[in-house]
Amino acid sequence: MRTVPANDLLEFAKVVLIRLGVPEEDARIVSDVLIQADLRGIDSHGIARLRRYVKGLKEGYIKPEAEIKIIRETPVTATLDGGAGLGQLISVKAMELAIKKARENFLGFVAVRNTNHFGIAGYYSMMALKEGMIGISTTNSEVCIVPTFGARAMLGTNPISIAVPALKERPFVLDMATSTVPVGKIEVYDRLGKSLPEGWAVDEYGENARDPARVIENVYGHKGGGLLPLGGLEEESGGHKGYGLALVVEIFSALLPGALYSELVYPVDEEGRPLPPNIGHFFGAMRIDAFRDPEEFRKDMDDLLRRLKNSPKRRGKERIYIHGEKEMEMVRLREKEGIPLLDRVVRDLKDIARDLGIVPPF
Amino acid sequence: MRTVPANDLLEFAKVVLIRLGVPEEDARIVSDVLIQADLRGIDSHGIARLRRYVKGLKEGYIKPEAEIKIIRETPVTATLDGGAGLGQLISVKAMELAIKKARENFLGFVAVRNTNHFGIAGYYSMMALKEGMIGISTTNSEVCIVPTFGARAMLGTNPISIAVPALKERPFVLDMATSTVPVGKIEVYDRLGKSLPEGWAVDEYGENARDPARVIENVYGHKGGGLLPLGGLEEESGGHKGYGLALVVEIFSALLPGALYSELVYPVDEEGRPLPPNIGHFFGAMRIDAFRDPEEFRKDMDDLLRRLKNSPKRRGKERIYIHGEKEMEMVRLREKEGIPLLDRVVRDLKDIARDLGIVPPF
Repeated sequence: MRTVPANDLLEFAKVVLIRLGVPEEDARIVSDVLIQADLRGIDSHGIARLRRYVKGLKEGYIKPEAEIKIIRETPVTATLDGGAGLGQLISVKAMELAIKKARENFLGFVAVRNTNHFGIAGYYSMMALKEGMIGISTTNSEVCIVPTFGARAMLGTNPISIAVPALKERPFVLDMATSTVPVGKIEVYDRLGKSLPEGWAVDEYGENARDPARVIENVYGHKGGGLLPLGGLEEESGGHKGYGLALVVEIFSALLPGALYSELVYPVDEEGRPLPPNIGHFFGAMRIDAFRDPEEFRKDMDDLLRRLKNSPKRRGKERIYIHGEKEMEMVRLREKEGIPLLDRVVRDLKDIARDLGIVPPF
Repeated sequence: MRTVPANDLLEFAKVVLIRLGVPEEDARIVSDVLIQADLRGIDSHGIARLRRYVKGLKEGYIKPEAEIKIIRETPVTATLDGGAGLGQLISVKAMELAIKKARENFLGFVAVRNTNHFGIAGYYSMMALKEGMIGISTTNSEVCIVPTFGARAMLGTNPISIAVPALKERPFVLDMATSTVPVGKIEVYDRLGKSLPEGWAVDEYGENARDPARVIENVYGHKGGGLLPLGGLEEESGGHKGYGLALVVEIFSALLPGALYSELVYPVDEEGRPLPPNIGHFFGAMRIDAFRDPEEFRKDMDDLLRRLKNSPKRRGKERIYIHGEKEMEMVRLREKEGIPLLDRVVRDLKDIARDLGIVPPF
């Protein structure tokens, strides 16, 4: 474990991307999305993923200088083709367009196809907060979630993020996969040698899986089974609701823009070389004054969030959280103390640096 | 148990509402929403609830001839004041306005305050299907859900409904409370003398509650405890996600229009008489051609829904459902065979009929 200042990591990621042909300003945008994930404590979606983006750029299924095209447009909506570029860059541009449309016409919704993994959904929804707007962001992803009563992964972990500004309180930032837990959590249990709780994953027969190694092998090998939707295995525990939410995200992120959907095993050409995966995203920005005086709304937000935080606690618990609070506290901590990197991640980054002839700042 | 043709029940509900001062066309609309709930198998929100609406109309907190006012309006949004009328009537009008705006400007979102219980969320989202649009509907409600790590109900069961048209397949209609189960389910367990599974409800200490009678007493008496959000008790099982979704619904349905939020114990005047509860709803309609050729989209919907239904099943399961399928099959069955009414419900309806001097059709 090593701790590195956020800015050093950001500069490193930027130089790596530039070296792989990404224009400087675009590299800065993508690196910022990555480092914000680390700052927020979502380590699985931060600098640890740089390796995968480097791979994509080198193998050609992520384009360093992609052209983003508008396929369809109205005053309040648009559909973009991301040109198989970096998902983060396309997503920032798409959310900027949604915000611009909302600024001009109260609402802005933008669907995007032909893009790549976009990192944390919360980055884009939070862009709306600076404008005092409500932000929405979703994406589909490689299949992972097994539908209720199924035995095979058919939907991505399909996250939803919704960000809403308050007045003096911190904003509400929901950023959730529609599975009970992300794959990363199964991997942690595998490393710790722990067996999985019920409701997280199923084996290839569709039954509760306890062995994390087998789940990981099944998921990555597309051998059946996979993650359970939020709500777990049965209708009794609400699993069909999480399955429904994952399906909503698939519809909005992939079917509306015309991206690849379900069975999203990354495609390859005749010689087995990976092709652009044609992932889809969906973004929204909504002006509060389209519905109500924003000052009144924000005062009510403060009051609602405080009521929740001040409400009676479960025996043994000291705090009720608002969504996004833990992450914002982590940002404050890590901005001061730096970002802790696992040895495995440090090794990966050093490999990337050596390969590209860059001196890493750690 | 007695089975009554849907149309007889609809006519009965209509006559009851007219007798209580509701204009004929409005009474027809409200009765249709009620009976559609029964047809879909959501008995808790059908004719069994007529008793409560009768009570509201008699006690004056539901206004039979409410004036619906537009408080704020843009080409793509509006905020309405429902004038404390019947929630079903206001909601049909609000969704009609959302659809009209979408027809003219691609998107339509309408927030509503000062309204009453609106029945099933799915009725309004499904109105968009007839226009080939995506429909959205949410409402807040009397507090029931306990936030993660909390011990007191702070949010309604806050349902979300999203309806999306397909081509030859039946449409996707998600209609879900953001709690693991609705209160009605706890009441069923109470009648059967069964103890509750984990993840459904907590007691006044915020711990898993097993005794349904105690949960019901606590919820209706506002004595602490209540229903758990989708995902259950702990963050490990994803309870904070269901809590986040309930909060999103509270923000959209109540804070955007300026309705009453959280701690929504129905208000009373100085003499203890109930006042209008100022519930809030939120509706949306989205034109598919704002994003993509609707025919292509609908073909993809068919393909996605078929892929899900045809995917491998869990051992012992024969079918994977799409959201709304069970309800649509129930409609077909009950349109033919009639709507079964519990003896308790028949007694209630006969009491209402006698009280108003109406001859019931059963």
